[in-house]
Amino acid sequence: MEGKILIAERKSREAVLRELTRKVFSNTLESLKRLEDPVIHIPVRSPKTVEYDPKRDVVLLKEKYLKRNFMNLGNVRRFVQTQAVAATIVELLKLDKHAQLRDVFYNRAYLFETQAESDNIIEDLAAALGTTRESLHIVASSKGVCIGKLKVRDHGDVIDCSKLGTSGLAISPFVDEYEFVEYDADFILVIEKDAAFSRLVEDRFWEKHRCILVTGKGQADIATRRFVRRLNHELGLPVYLLVDADSYGFYIYSVYRRGSISFSFESLSLATRDAKLLGLLPSDLDKYGVPKYARLKMTEHDIKFLQKIRSYPWFQKEAFQREFDIMEKTGEKAEIQALAAKGLTYLSEKYIPEKLKNEDWIE
Amino acid sequence: MEGKILIAERKSREAVLRELTRKVFSNTLESLKRLEDPVIHIPVRSPKTVEYDPKRDVVLLKEKYLKRNFMNLGNVRRFVQTQAVAATIVELLKLDKHAQLRDVFYNRAYLFETQAESDNIIEDLAAALGTTRESLHIVASSKGVCIGKLKVRDHGDVIDCSKLGTSGLAISPFVDEYEFVEYDADFILVIEKDAAFSRLVEDRFWEKHRCILVTGKGQADIATRRFVRRLNHELGLPVYLLVDADSYGFYIYSVYRRGSISFSFESLSLATRDAKLLGLLPSDLDKYGVPKYARLKMTEHDIKFLQKIRSYPWFQKEAFQREFDIMEKTGEKAEIQALAAKGLTYLSEKYIPEKLKNEDWIE
Repeated sequence: MEGKILIAERKSREAVLRELTRKVFSNTLESLKRLEDPVIHIPVRSPKTVEYDPKRDVVLLKEKYLKRNFMNLGNVRRFVQTQAVAATIVELLKLDKHAQLRDVFYNRAYLFETQAESDNIIEDLAAALGTTRESLHIVASSKGVCIGKLKVRDHGDVIDCSKLGTSGLAISPFVDEYEFVEYDADFILVIEKDAAFSRLVEDRFWEKHRCILVTGKGQADIATRRFVRRLNHELGLPVYLLVDADSYGFYIYSVYRRGSISFSFESLSLATRDAKLLGLLPSDLDKYGVPKYARLKMTEHDIKFLQKIRSYPWFQKEAFQREFDIMEKTGEKAEIQALAAKGLTYLSEKYIPEKLKNEDWIE
Repeated sequence: MEGKILIAERKSREAVLRELTRKVFSNTLESLKRLEDPVIHIPVRSPKTVEYDPKRDVVLLKEKYLKRNFMNLGNVRRFVQTQAVAATIVELLKLDKHAQLRDVFYNRAYLFETQAESDNIIEDLAAALGTTRESLHIVASSKGVCIGKLKVRDHGDVIDCSKLGTSGLAISPFVDEYEFVEYDADFILVIEKDAAFSRLVEDRFWEKHRCILVTGKGQADIATRRFVRRLNHELGLPVYLLVDADSYGFYIYSVYRRGSISFSFESLSLATRDAKLLGLLPSDLDKYGVPKYARLKMTEHDIKFLQKIRSYPWFQKEAFQREFDIMEKTGEKAEIQALAAKGLTYLSEKYIPEKLKNEDWIE
């Protein structure tokens, strides 16, 4: 990958306040005083600047700026929006409060037609400051749940995730505030579907196999991805992913593992470099004798999506292509729950333990 | 309301095993021995048997049975499906394990075309036994989160919901296993949107106002409804609902308060009789000066849905109709987050405290 890349760094409240004030407000004032046209420099986030870096094996954003200036009819609206959103962020930081994307939209709704516009300006500002959205005190809600041998400090409370019954920790939107106090686990198992997660929780899989269970309940949100990434990075534990044996399963794995295009700027703080795709693999269907009646036919949409993802540079490894070939040949897909056809506890008592023992995953 | 009604009761594992064996298996065997046609009696669940009971102020199911017999070509398939699903439930109960709806579908996928079919048979069996789906050890996953002055015992662990930082308790699918050990709260606040929930959590609203916060993250799932109902019923605390000022907000309130048609059979164990609609009311928009730019235009779909719900018998009270009139006249709706236009902490510091103080809600 050529050229400089932009990496979002977590920054302190004070640092963000300082930089925001300088880059957005002071510079503007200075320019106006000198009777010059005020300009804010914003990194370009487009498919053209997003690139897969094979060396780091993640999706990254290349450094390239556009000028957003005031004395330009095509730009002035966005210039003013940028100033207004920056002012909201300053208010948040001064109050030491967080807001959701939608709150920011409403707070400045007189300037925006849709939330997509204000979301975009927030990303612009994060990129301009080279920091994460969370450092701007703007968070997105999280669906993730965690249970297992882990103690987390969250705003002063120490939460023992092995003492939360069958309920579990609802992963906070303020996931960067977590401090991992203690753990007694050998690995992390991330499960796409919460039904499968419940199955493993009820079977006390995390206790028997000394691990930490996480579910993102489908496509993972930013907070859940950041949580898994931090667990992996800070505790040094391997992460195994359990997803459906279909195109979306591979995509979900890929987002955990390599980041997504829309958040390429934060890839390095979101991607879990050690994530392994444990299953459900298309080749597992025959290997584990999933009966034909529990398999589903791929839809046209599935097949199209498969064509798309199998061309991604990071899926060129033979192990992946072999799985894609199987899907293409059989036209079959299956959900994790399809293993219930082999018995209701087959997943926790047979499938996962055997896969782990045989190191039967794709890296 | 005339005629007998069917009420789902929570039953022990042993009782369900006994009744299931008798009603589904022994009777069939006996009939076959006598060379008679085996029959299973299943309550009819259709719009015709679902009725609003103004006295109890909930949606209920009237008792009316259909016969599902074996020696009948139109029936035999469903008869066999019923037997097979009953056998899966027996297995679950014997193992003392729970399954999700989708697990049951896969476990018997050779008999079903779609999951809707197997879901339906599960409901049939619950109704036939006069019990809840959870008593059959079949659960649905839950999205709900709780934080506040409450201690819950869940499978031996005592969880203090006031010591869970900004994360909170992920409400378990096995919500009937919860035991409420202790609480130090004056009321329960149920919030439709998790963004608003996060706002209140960060502002430590539950601590300042001695309450328990719950979010269902949109339309509430069964476990979250059951959780709120149990809190209300067992702790005797009033429940206030905070939803968007639109047709769906009223509907979500209505489901918490009176039950839904599809779960009419379990209404009495799901509906929260003391639920009050605190806001966001359409009349609040002017009362609290929500600026015009933070209000949204109702879509055609919103207007149609409004026509539908305003005819519901339980919405005939003047207080509701007045709010519906406002929506119809202005054509406006607003989300809870619209209050952010008045300042980011307006919701927690001004709006809710004032509404509570003035007892400004609809019952």
